[in-house]
Amino acid sequence: MSSSRESKEPQTQYYTISNFKFENGDTLPEVKLAYQILNPQNTKVAIVNTCFKGRLNGTLTHSTGAFSDHKIILFALLGNGESSSPSNTPNFPKTLEYMDCVRAEHTLLTKELKIGTVDVMLGFSMGGQITYHWITMYPEFVRKAIIVCSSARTSRHNFQFLEGPRAALESARDEESGKYAFGKAYSAWLTSAEWFDDELYKTMGAQSLAAWDKAVMDSYHDWSGKDLLAMLGMWQRGDIARCVPQAKGDLGKALQMIAAKVLLMPCETDQYFRPYVNQREKVQLDSATVAIVPSVWGHIVGGDADKEATRWMDDKIQTFLQQ
Amino acid sequence: MSSSRESKEPQTQYYTISNFKFENGDTLPEVKLAYQILNPQNTKVAIVNTCFKGRLNGTLTHSTGAFSDHKIILFALLGNGESSSPSNTPNFPKTLEYMDCVRAEHTLLTKELKIGTVDVMLGFSMGGQITYHWITMYPEFVRKAIIVCSSARTSRHNFQFLEGPRAALESARDEESGKYAFGKAYSAWLTSAEWFDDELYKTMGAQSLAAWDKAVMDSYHDWSGKDLLAMLGMWQRGDIARCVPQAKGDLGKALQMIAAKVLLMPCETDQYFRPYVNQREKVQLDSATVAIVPSVWGHIVGGDADKEATRWMDDKIQTFLQQ
Repeated sequence: MSSSRESKEPQTQYYTISNFKFENGDTLPEVKLAYQILNPQNTKVAIVNTCFKGRLNGTLTHSTGAFSDHKIILFALLGNGESSSPSNTPNFPKTLEYMDCVRAEHTLLTKELKIGTVDVMLGFSMGGQITYHWITMYPEFVRKAIIVCSSARTSRHNFQFLEGPRAALESARDEESGKYAFGKAYSAWLTSAEWFDDELYKTMGAQSLAAWDKAVMDSYHDWSGKDLLAMLGMWQRGDIARCVPQAKGDLGKALQMIAAKVLLMPCETDQYFRPYVNQREKVQLDSATVAIVPSVWGHIVGGDADKEATRWMDDKIQTFLQQ
Repeated sequence: MSSSRESKEPQTQYYTISNFKFENGDTLPEVKLAYQILNPQNTKVAIVNTCFKGRLNGTLTHSTGAFSDHKIILFALLGNGESSSPSNTPNFPKTLEYMDCVRAEHTLLTKELKIGTVDVMLGFSMGGQITYHWITMYPEFVRKAIIVCSSARTSRHNFQFLEGPRAALESARDEESGKYAFGKAYSAWLTSAEWFDDELYKTMGAQSLAAWDKAVMDSYHDWSGKDLLAMLGMWQRGDIARCVPQAKGDLGKALQMIAAKVLLMPCETDQYFRPYVNQREKVQLDSATVAIVPSVWGHIVGGDADKEATRWMDDKIQTFLQQ
């Protein structure tokens, strides 16, 4: 479910922040942010974040399309196993928040890369949720935001769906069984009923549903159960109304604090980040455009799973950047 | 998620079949079918079957509505803990099929109750699937069939969703943890995204999502993990093209063998028994009517979860019976 890049993978860099204080009050002596810079020759700046279970290599960055004239700074979310995570950091906080990721990235951008504003920020799924948190916490920092298959607040339905994989992992007899059960409890949500009906796993090289299922389960081998749970918790608590005190927990107020121009791209068949949620957000987000991706690939359309849809999204992004 | 009956619960009866041969080749010396007879004074006969995780008491039978002038024979599916099941029967077969339930019920109806044809058969979810198998295996036995939130063949998407709860239970450190993880991996599928958004669990007496979640998990206490898995396997393998050799595995051929008049009632927001599947079935099922239940209660609408929808369905059934 990852894309291949046309060019050689760029080098991953690590930036260390000392005495980093997390949202939950914990402090770590060192926090590392993993990132890559693509198209470094360009002046305009695009920020992209990884998604749940996403690594830097394999993340859809539009580097040869809509962002080909942008310098792209691609961040690994905290907890993804590349940036600081439970699997690589002793005493990692029990709860991780999007606000932690935003503050770490803001420090790297301003202190290390001397960037005061960015032209565009893009993210898919959890990458879209951190983007939403970014533009709420730092409304003057980002000019345009592209949020793919995501939402400003994790819906109760989405929260409850995530309870399944979480309980499967936490109740398991050992980590390998737990990751297997986690993957199983997650798998039918990834795409859509129509996608299964049409046997579209065959276009991914799987000859049968069972072969696709095995490939999905195998994709968990290089993930730590602890990292999956840290990220999943961050996702479940995702809510821009929590990231700025002035919003007082009110989603509408938080949305109204956003200054960036926003392009929301839900997928019409996404089973958990549903298009109507973005349409409701738009009511209080004057600057937003909603472009519903026409695809039966469901949620994973935002991860470059459907090449035709990727081209469709790239076109929408190009138009949005020209506005 | 169960309904209350207006009248006193009828008595549960048990019928024993000796030397019962299962579809998988196993034979048991005794198989027991649990059933109830409601409105015994009537002449017209209606058959109703329980659903997944359904017990006789609590099953929606329309006994005071559309079926008030019918004698209702309500069957407990094999595996439900009331009829013969892994939890109450030594050496219970490793795989259970709808065909086994149909044959056992056919024996009881013809040998014990001396019934040669039934006027109407109704079922919700797995109860709808056994109904579909019944009218394919014994096309002359049932005049009319009402199939609620169900399908003739379990879709790949539905199959894959069930892999989640199954793996969660099978991977767990013990049965209690396993049933908990099973319930969690199942719970977000029960209703719909809109239902969670609208906090409709509050109409069920739960003050919060967490309280509803706890009530759902508590509902697993009097279920055996083995029974859940036996029923879930039967559901995953549900396919009327497997129950008659003449169909040769072809769903269209199997549908064309059905003689009963059929009313298909999917719910518009059901996340796994999707309305479009029934609409596709209708193409090869001349006698069928599809009436899509307008409700945000998703799948469980068929289990009497939404009283307004129950009345809507009861009206549709009354009209269908008069045709």
